[in-house]
Amino acid sequence: MYISIFNDKRGLMGRGVVFGGRDLQIIADCIKNKRKFYALSGIMPSNDRIHFGNKMVVENLRYFQDHGAITYMLIADIEASASRGISIEEARERAMNFHIPAYIALGLDPKKTKFYFQSENTEVMKIAAAASKKITLNEFQAVYGTADPGRILSAFTQMGDILYPQEAEERMPGIIPVGPDQDPHVRLTRDYIRRSKEKKYFLVSAIYHKYTPALNGGFKMSKSKPESMIELPEDKASFSKKIMRAVTGGRDTLELQRKLGADVEKDMVFELLKQHLIEDDKELNAIYKDYKSGKMLSSELKELAIEKMSEFMDDFNRKLEAARKAVKNLRFIH
Amino acid sequence: MYISIFNDKRGLMGRGVVFGGRDLQIIADCIKNKRKFYALSGIMPSNDRIHFGNKMVVENLRYFQDHGAITYMLIADIEASASRGISIEEARERAMNFHIPAYIALGLDPKKTKFYFQSENTEVMKIAAAASKKITLNEFQAVYGTADPGRILSAFTQMGDILYPQEAEERMPGIIPVGPDQDPHVRLTRDYIRRSKEKKYFLVSAIYHKYTPALNGGFKMSKSKPESMIELPEDKASFSKKIMRAVTGGRDTLELQRKLGADVEKDMVFELLKQHLIEDDKELNAIYKDYKSGKMLSSELKELAIEKMSEFMDDFNRKLEAARKAVKNLRFIH
Repeated sequence: MYISIFNDKRGLMGRGVVFGGRDLQIIADCIKNKRKFYALSGIMPSNDRIHFGNKMVVENLRYFQDHGAITYMLIADIEASASRGISIEEARERAMNFHIPAYIALGLDPKKTKFYFQSENTEVMKIAAAASKKITLNEFQAVYGTADPGRILSAFTQMGDILYPQEAEERMPGIIPVGPDQDPHVRLTRDYIRRSKEKKYFLVSAIYHKYTPALNGGFKMSKSKPESMIELPEDKASFSKKIMRAVTGGRDTLELQRKLGADVEKDMVFELLKQHLIEDDKELNAIYKDYKSGKMLSSELKELAIEKMSEFMDDFNRKLEAARKAVKNLRFIH
Repeated sequence: MYISIFNDKRGLMGRGVVFGGRDLQIIADCIKNKRKFYALSGIMPSNDRIHFGNKMVVENLRYFQDHGAITYMLIADIEASASRGISIEEARERAMNFHIPAYIALGLDPKKTKFYFQSENTEVMKIAAAASKKITLNEFQAVYGTADPGRILSAFTQMGDILYPQEAEERMPGIIPVGPDQDPHVRLTRDYIRRSKEKKYFLVSAIYHKYTPALNGGFKMSKSKPESMIELPEDKASFSKKIMRAVTGGRDTLELQRKLGADVEKDMVFELLKQHLIEDDKELNAIYKDYKSGKMLSSELKELAIEKMSEFMDDFNRKLEAARKAVKNLRFIH
């Protein structure tokens, strides 16, 4: 999907799916002036599947990668093991067999990406330990709203991850694509950087994207509600059923629909097309108009979505297969 | 110094210097039945010197080591770096140049000890991360009396250290020699072990030793008050001055001392002899009687202490020199 951070009203930014950031101007300047910067994200290899939220992260990362970012991708095997009760080995195997290939299938360029396993990177723990000395419990609670020890350990590890490229390379701007729920990590990291006397780190930037809303109308896709989300991969029979049952903005009768048009803003199927399945802004706008005016029916929109999803899923599966082979040659940072 | 955990009234146990433990019986049984168990302690390489508190730890460790314990010694280089603002490299260099040789000089057998650097042991972080998910903030606060993030991170790292030998070897009893201020780590670890369903770890034991009291009468030797403590190594002129100025139980006049005898329990010089400098119980008891009865003067006790301290320090320096050479061949766990 098209993204730009240069006040460009096309693509995901124009559609409001990628909706803002912190200090994006710094990154825009880096891109314009070809100065060094990094992008970072992580994979939590705790489940067997990923979903469209992960796809959004990869698309963001890919944009920065295509525009010169040194890209870091951490595999949170310790976190996956600690929070899901699987062994580290299992977490790593899942990452190698599925998550990393899936991210590559979604567009991450493995040749331009530096991967590391949390369990092999003690540098991250050093940064986390140093940062933990400079942040009070009150501050932590103010940022996270909670402060249980598990959350604290994991938050500092993530701060370590966010700053690690500046230890591994040099002091430089960095961009972290996040969903709104991950903003606390960015905030705490920025607070820490700003306060530190040594000015060891450059203040990190962030870019925010909307959640992919639940097909059944909920706030976001949730793994605990399978009917709310489409996984990657998922077979056609399964995702077709979910799309057919999705909450739409279509009217109760054909007559009303023709007369009033759809309430597109409430339509989860349109949202899916907008966020993930239709690249071309013109094509999307045409659909919007037809649907809004009542020319297009909700059932037609669903059919279209199923068709687009099929294409996407076929493409994803094909690329996943290829990436599974390529991943064997990946080198990891130790 | 002589230690025994078999209800033996001699040595440090009889003198009340090593004063108790948790589940010592389990370790006594291991020793008696030659069953596998471990002992563990750590070195914090943040200062250039160690003190007599460290000596006490080594003596405890050495007792268990001599009685079959698989001995682990961690070098807290991450912690030292995070809390003292020195680099990891500096912390490691200090450990190699001084702390490890000093511990060997104090009696630790390097051939029977498995050393590791925290910064090279990600297994510890895995255990810490898993444990952090099972402990609430309230529980942490109840055990530590505080819960700032730095403390939390460091406490879980220490839990990871305490349990690490059971991951590296097998589920087995372990003994942790600690000063009373480190008991929270043992308590929290025991709570965690007891509560965990998988019964992955054997409940760890602990043995407690008194603080070496401050020469000027304070509660414990403190690095912030140089006059309160004798460091290892320290030159004769310096430690002699400190001993001469130490708080004693001697009376104000010669006449009163002869008549009433010394208040030995308040005498920091006697405490030094008792805790660190006189191995032989009979010799110590004879001094106690003479001093208590007024036959011996405070100045004589101080002279004796200076003489014993000189011998000890000469021996320590000689062994330190030898250990510095030996340490180059040490192998560390990675």
